[in-house]
Amino acid sequence: MKEQTDPLYLEDLHIGQRFTSGSYVMEAARIKQFAAEFDPQPFHLDESAAQASLFKGLAASGWHTAAVAMRLLVTGELRFANGFLGLGGEIAWPRPARPGDTLHVESEIIEITPSRSKPHQGIVTVRSTMLNQTGEAVYLLTAKLLVVRRPT
Amino acid sequence: MKEQTDPLYLEDLHIGQRFTSGSYVMEAARIKQFAAEFDPQPFHLDESAAQASLFKGLAASGWHTAAVAMRLLVTGELRFANGFLGLGGEIAWPRPARPGDTLHVESEIIEITPSRSKPHQGIVTVRSTMLNQTGEAVYLLTAKLLVVRRPT
Repeated sequence: MKEQTDPLYLEDLHIGQRFTSGSYVMEAARIKQFAAEFDPQPFHLDESAAQASLFKGLAASGWHTAAVAMRLLVTGELRFANGFLGLGGEIAWPRPARPGDTLHVESEIIEITPSRSKPHQGIVTVRSTMLNQTGEAVYLLTAKLLVVRRPT
Repeated sequence: MKEQTDPLYLEDLHIGQRFTSGSYVMEAARIKQFAAEFDPQPFHLDESAAQASLFKGLAASGWHTAAVAMRLLVTGELRFANGFLGLGGEIAWPRPARPGDTLHVESEIIEITPSRSKPHQGIVTVRSTMLNQTGEAVYLLTAKLLVVRRPT
């Protein structure tokens, strides 16, 4: 794990560069509260209903998991000078995040495409994996980010 | 807009079938509160900082926008008997959602793939667009969902 404090510009990045995040503990109360607001389905709201569902126990909404991953990314090593500006990407939830899970995110730069029309910026593709305490992936994000060059 | 009350099973679906949602108003206070918890970047937290950023005004976190879309999907016409169970998909944010925006989601079934190994279920691909009050897309989601057949 490389120490990273200075914000990153496009020219600081290379393919294969890796970054990690701090950790976050998923709590049952927050799982239910998030779900009540944004994803009100029984398996995210209530232990008994969740036990009877395909999840076989309370599971965080995938969008709660995604939001936690964003928090870990934004507060982790991978800090861009212009912020973490996502244009879009691909997501997957190989398994649910559960109450008590301690999660962290590992990221790798997989593509860097300087803009032809806007020479001061480019698109950087970052592949991130959120892992639980036993090293199982609970969330995959491949994001396209807008990253600027260092001002000259 | 077709009235839809009965939950949907795999055999109720066909390609090209469309569904709509209710609406949701984005509020500045909730935008900032969500960002403070999950996406603490200046352009989601503070009007002045947002004005000076690429967004030129307060913008909702893309993950807040995604979470609101999920709320609209889960509470809209497209209700599956086994719930809205996403395996993953593709996302994009063509423009930010702003305070005061009234958002709704329009969805279309674009692919149906019955499982070979598990004959009681299949994967359904749903393309959803979240639009603001002037009809501009603020969020695109193409999601792969697990949908079960009607029990026999």
